[in-house]
Amino acid sequence: MAGANFLLTLVAAVLCVCFAPTAAGPGIPEIKAYLNGVDTPNMFDNRKHRSRCRGLRSRKRRATSTHRQLHRFSTRPRWPDNYRIKWRWLRYFNNDRDRRDLITCGSSSGVCAAFRAPVGGVLFALEEVATWWRSALLWRTFFSTAVVVVVLRAVMEYCKTGDCGLFGKGGLIMFDVSGVSVRYHVVDIIPVAVIGVLGGLLGSLYNHILHKVLKVYNVINKKGKLHKLLLSLSVSIFTSVCLYGLPFLAKCQPCDTSLPNTTCPTTGRDGNFKQFNCPKGYYNDLATLLLTTNDDAVRSIFSINTPTEFNIFSLFIFFALYCILGLITFGIAVPSGLFLPIILMGSAYGRLLGIAMSPYTKIDQGLYAVLGAASLMAGSMRMTVSLCVIFLELTNNLLLLPITMLVLLIAKTVGDCFNPSIYEIILELKGLPFLDANPEPWMRNITVGELADVKPAVVTLNGIEKVGRIVEVLKNTTHNGFPVVDSGVIPPIGSPNGANELHGLVLRAHLILVLKKKWFLQERRRTGEWEVREKFTSIDLAERGATIEEVIVTKDEMEMYVDLHPLTNTTPYTVVESMSVAKAMVLFRQVGLRHMIILPKYQAAGVFPVVGILTRQDLIAHNILSVFPHLERSKGTKKGQ
Amino acid sequence: MAGANFLLTLVAAVLCVCFAPTAAGPGIPEIKAYLNGVDTPNMFDNRKHRSRCRGLRSRKRRATSTHRQLHRFSTRPRWPDNYRIKWRWLRYFNNDRDRRDLITCGSSSGVCAAFRAPVGGVLFALEEVATWWRSALLWRTFFSTAVVVVVLRAVMEYCKTGDCGLFGKGGLIMFDVSGVSVRYHVVDIIPVAVIGVLGGLLGSLYNHILHKVLKVYNVINKKGKLHKLLLSLSVSIFTSVCLYGLPFLAKCQPCDTSLPNTTCPTTGRDGNFKQFNCPKGYYNDLATLLLTTNDDAVRSIFSINTPTEFNIFSLFIFFALYCILGLITFGIAVPSGLFLPIILMGSAYGRLLGIAMSPYTKIDQGLYAVLGAASLMAGSMRMTVSLCVIFLELTNNLLLLPITMLVLLIAKTVGDCFNPSIYEIILELKGLPFLDANPEPWMRNITVGELADVKPAVVTLNGIEKVGRIVEVLKNTTHNGFPVVDSGVIPPIGSPNGANELHGLVLRAHLILVLKKKWFLQERRRTGEWEVREKFTSIDLAERGATIEEVIVTKDEMEMYVDLHPLTNTTPYTVVESMSVAKAMVLFRQVGLRHMIILPKYQAAGVFPVVGILTRQDLIAHNILSVFPHLERSKGTKKGQ
Repeated sequence: MAGANFLLTLVAAVLCVCFAPTAAGPGIPEIKAYLNGVDTPNMFDNRKHRSRCRGLRSRKRRATSTHRQLHRFSTRPRWPDNYRIKWRWLRYFNNDRDRRDLITCGSSSGVCAAFRAPVGGVLFALEEVATWWRSALLWRTFFSTAVVVVVLRAVMEYCKTGDCGLFGKGGLIMFDVSGVSVRYHVVDIIPVAVIGVLGGLLGSLYNHILHKVLKVYNVINKKGKLHKLLLSLSVSIFTSVCLYGLPFLAKCQPCDTSLPNTTCPTTGRDGNFKQFNCPKGYYNDLATLLLTTNDDAVRSIFSINTPTEFNIFSLFIFFALYCILGLITFGIAVPSGLFLPIILMGSAYGRLLGIAMSPYTKIDQGLYAVLGAASLMAGSMRMTVSLCVIFLELTNNLLLLPITMLVLLIAKTVGDCFNPSIYEIILELKGLPFLDANPEPWMRNITVGELADVKPAVVTLNGIEKVGRIVEVLKNTTHNGFPVVDSGVIPPIGSPNGANELHGLVLRAHLILVLKKKWFLQERRRTGEWEVREKFTSIDLAERGATIEEVIVTKDEMEMYVDLHPLTNTTPYTVVESMSVAKAMVLFRQVGLRHMIILPKYQAAGVFPVVGILTRQDLIAHNILSVFPHLERSKGTKKGQ
Repeated sequence: MAGANFLLTLVAAVLCVCFAPTAAGPGIPEIKAYLNGVDTPNMFDNRKHRSRCRGLRSRKRRATSTHRQLHRFSTRPRWPDNYRIKWRWLRYFNNDRDRRDLITCGSSSGVCAAFRAPVGGVLFALEEVATWWRSALLWRTFFSTAVVVVVLRAVMEYCKTGDCGLFGKGGLIMFDVSGVSVRYHVVDIIPVAVIGVLGGLLGSLYNHILHKVLKVYNVINKKGKLHKLLLSLSVSIFTSVCLYGLPFLAKCQPCDTSLPNTTCPTTGRDGNFKQFNCPKGYYNDLATLLLTTNDDAVRSIFSINTPTEFNIFSLFIFFALYCILGLITFGIAVPSGLFLPIILMGSAYGRLLGIAMSPYTKIDQGLYAVLGAASLMAGSMRMTVSLCVIFLELTNNLLLLPITMLVLLIAKTVGDCFNPSIYEIILELKGLPFLDANPEPWMRNITVGELADVKPAVVTLNGIEKVGRIVEVLKNTTHNGFPVVDSGVIPPIGSPNGANELHGLVLRAHLILVLKKKWFLQERRRTGEWEVREKFTSIDLAERGATIEEVIVTKDEMEMYVDLHPLTNTTPYTVVESMSVAKAMVLFRQVGLRHMIILPKYQAAGVFPVVGILTRQDLIAHNILSVFPHLERSKGTKKGQ
């Protein structure tokens, strides 16, 4: 078994290290960044998913299966770009908006499939993953999780008759605790609050240590592929040693013969009372928790009316082991998840607390385990509504709702006092330019004009531009959008000596397309709309990824002209230079922009109609602070959280 | 009893007609409009809630109790404005954002209290009510519903011992159907789909007829207060006659003695088998449904394993009666709700369908009632996720989730083919300028510059303006914001003969404040920031509602000056005149604006730096169509729904 684990980890790690480095880790931060508007190269390519799928299988579903579903939905629109499949109809989804919608649906379906929590999946996508939210999207994610649930049910129905291995067990409700009698009174609020506070503290501590561990791992991983591989493999060996060695430390416990209808001890894969190394009539409680699938471990630890089943010592070893494994496994080069390790940690913590507080309250210890898992998740991931619904759907006990809500709110509040959520920490570590919903307070003290001043001067193009200039501009800059300005036009009113007119914004991709298709003019003239339509289909215009190096332009062609007017987006979003960065950022994020043109606040003859151009990178807090370090001092707490 | 109903309706109607006309109706459309940015006068004043509360009590909780909670939260910030209570600390909530957040929390708490559905309440606020959604708001609404649930539980616990009348009955789960065995197979999808399709058809038919009825009522209500009152009272008499007369039509049914633990017939207020006019050993099924609270009626009709309890004839009368009552009660001048009438209608429809299809499937008739109610609500209100969670929380049966999801999705899709949701219909009838999430397709064919051209020329103020001019402008226009332009300034680069500078936007309320506080200057000069801070507190600046008529300015003062610079918002959102109306609308709604300044696309000496100003009214579809009727022809279906 240890050998098998080693081998499978090796395969997954080699795949991740050599072929798809982005497949390592939990995936959710990357999706979050993508939906925020960050377009990392290779973020969603096909190979990643293959190695991720392999990794998932090998690691016995330790990872959340977000990606299994995501694979089905989200990679489709990306395939036509980079890979072989070029179906015509798929191209209709080849635009940013549909791609984002599909990925959001995919992430909600993933959570839905992992926890069999359709509504929880929708809320997860809403609360944690998505940046922009439309009413239509709510409906679409809901539809996709409905499909997942119906398919799941059908497969489960089928698996009941045949044998699908570990799949299909547990039914639609994974950890049913609906049998527990929830009779709690006002005094029970005290232990519930204690669970929440401690869960919040532990969660933020976990975030803090994980941050440190990931930093160390980053240093190791940078040293080369071999280091990366060795790190993964040593973690794998450590895991195997612990899982098979630690149960020997636990004392054998006698079976409780007073319980009806339970087989004790059990020798197979299932069951609450594993025999392991014990004589007949005894069971090893640590083996029950460690030598099984994670799902079954959660099920055993959540089980109700079993106050004496688990020893404090065994629970503590289990808790400590999962803390260590959760911390060291996360950053290695294999696909991994956050949900189940934290649920396991949290449920062990909850049961330990339950045993410690058992003289004072009557709350069942299985319930403590559920609440402990909820509190640790809220303390680390800082979600509330979605976690609440996921736990409701996992445990099928509506009467737990009020106390679950309380625990989640307390844990989140406590955690927020110390550090940001685990996803934000990972996003920052990965250096992804994520735009936060709330601008920092010091952003109100700086205008976009000041920001534009310290940047290199903006590169603008004429409405009818020479091919040579376009090639030069594309080669010498890395900008993705260029303002198009017409000079010397006659405005309807005012100045007789001609005005400058801001015509709009042209994209690098479209300029390259023009050069590739050699759509040149011999003389400076305006072309008609229909000429463009004839030449470029909407599919051409949606293509991305071509580079200027692929384009070959002859010397003669360099002297020719291109009419950029029909290719220009005449309605780009703009801000005046006196706009504060905070407000510009709100606009940028709310409307979902890539570029924003800065206009002058003055209106006079010599003034150029464009002051600069703002991109996502310009609005990232630490990029601004690197140029204006004095703003750091006025840094305070965020408003509106 | 009929007399009591008449009297109570009279009181509610008189209050509504004479004191608080906005209290009539369901209230949700108004909240939706307010959260969209519409600020109707008296929308949330104190008197309204008093008469609404009275109405609620009198009408035996027929209305959804959204407002009971809302009252607690949302009116608070408004009180200091119009009423006596002027607590200092309340003023800190006296800004638009906090007010909106509180109202959103209030509406979610209202639904939570009405259905005891905390998560459903949050989702309802998210899906139906709120226009802007922030992650922080999700957390806040969740917190407020958590408080509501904890309070509810405590009160219920207390009511178990004492006697609180009808309050506190039903527990935290109102219509528990968790006992039903949900064993459905692939073939059961067919009846489920039928429920969904018929529910969608009925729902859209209900919307259609209600639209017509409300139009007729509008005509009657406009004729005067007496007409309004008479209409309400005649509906009340009709209701009483039907409720007490119709049960005589039903045949008495013999009690089923095979059922254990049921008292049959019952003579009191509760119970599934009302004796009414029947001999001993018999019960009147229509009386069971009609002569009880609505909650109990729903509970009886949802009850499982009672296939023979209700007669087809009685169910049909019940269905028809509630269709008629639901249609004619809604528009009269008393506070009323939508949720419970539709649930009652839907459950009767579901049971009827269940009886009709009983030879073909094994689904329980109580389940049919639940699904029928869900389908009719989705067909009329077009919500999906929130309804699904509300039904989950009402019925406490997680295994129903997949089929509920299917029914809701089918019903919504079918309904959307025919007409918009009931709330949108009411919003349109009330003439509230609600900004839709998706711009109409023809809005892409018109620019904001064209829109500005047909409006009266924009009124701008100088940075340092004469008092006389300000008074004149305020008296002659109704605009709420004025662009401030400095002329003859020297820009950093370019034109030596001076430029025009757009300084920002000043609000009407602030201008009136200046006039009231007589903050005038003898000569044209710039004032310092500190002078303003000394004179105006942030509380002063947050005040609204003063009118120019309250201000008295002497003739001497008219010749003095005001420096508007410190009072100007220097960072208003702007668009260039070539921006399409569709994109401007997205910006307007996404960022939550009141005014948007239109800038010229030309840059030259004689060009004025402001082309116009856009307000919410300018962006409402039918306002644009009234000026540009030719756009109507290109009107098509909405994209993105």
